[in-house]
Amino acid sequence: MVRIVILRIGHRPERDQRVTTHVGLAARALGAEGMYLAEADNGVVQSITDVVTRWGGTFFCKDNMKWRRCINDWKEGGGTVVHLTMYGLNLPEVIDEIRGKDNVLVIVGAEKVPGEIFGLADYNIAVTSQPHSEISSLAVFLDHLFSGTELAGRYADAKIRIIPSKAGKKTEEV
Amino acid sequence: MVRIVILRIGHRPERDQRVTTHVGLAARALGAEGMYLAEADNGVVQSITDVVTRWGGTFFCKDNMKWRRCINDWKEGGGTVVHLTMYGLNLPEVIDEIRGKDNVLVIVGAEKVPGEIFGLADYNIAVTSQPHSEISSLAVFLDHLFSGTELAGRYADAKIRIIPSKAGKKTEEV
Repeated sequence: MVRIVILRIGHRPERDQRVTTHVGLAARALGAEGMYLAEADNGVVQSITDVVTRWGGTFFCKDNMKWRRCINDWKEGGGTVVHLTMYGLNLPEVIDEIRGKDNVLVIVGAEKVPGEIFGLADYNIAVTSQPHSEISSLAVFLDHLFSGTELAGRYADAKIRIIPSKAGKKTEEV
Repeated sequence: MVRIVILRIGHRPERDQRVTTHVGLAARALGAEGMYLAEADNGVVQSITDVVTRWGGTFFCKDNMKWRRCINDWKEGGGTVVHLTMYGLNLPEVIDEIRGKDNVLVIVGAEKVPGEIFGLADYNIAVTSQPHSEISSLAVFLDHLFSGTELAGRYADAKIRIIPSKAGKKTEEV
């Protein structure tokens, strides 16, 4: 199964804390292995780590990464680099090819992305050619990549689990 | 084809403006018809309206809606009400049933949702039983509902369109 790590770039510590936390949590819930954050922001790391502690699994979050080095290291290790951007090729055209890779770094930008990224990425991929959200783009990308199988994911070492129900909130402590 | 309108509840004008705008833009890009916002927030309405003006289509955004009345009116009109919540039934189990409906109001909450909503909704649906983001939940829900066909959507009356490309940014004024 393809291994996915997110690289979040363009994060501004004050303004983007919540959106970046959503990026990380969506990445975790939809099957990614971890997230590198190209900025120092302990608040994001803490929020995501808290969720992992409570809800289980091994998702990691590392801040203060240098994005150029991160991308170069990934490529030198033989991995594939995908950049999600509304300017890229439409997802359905390329997703089968990506599914055949072993290690994929998914770059998720904020509003402005350095032009250099488009050239460094092996694939620039659009989830529709319309403006929406990096969170929704990443979600649809991961869901297509894993063909929906990630939706039934269970997490080891969870302290709490939800018991799906028609109405109301049911959880179990484990 | 099933007609989808979003009802965004629990929005706090200062804190949630960006996340709610992302909810609206994701809804638009992934095939919904419009969004009701259960709070007064002209900033959100303006941001979404600006995107519609530039990128086309007929997506609407109305703020200052009363959520109880909105839900009741929808049900009285024979429509179906879906509430996206991590406590609900898992998406793959119910999506075929939803696809057979004509008019679906999708309730998208912020962090806290009034307990009453669980009872008012015809369906409480989870996109994974894990905490992530209302934006990623909505995106995966819409993408499953429309079976990915929404990804190739084109919008009437657009002033700008993207020409999908391998690397770089190509647009055309129309």
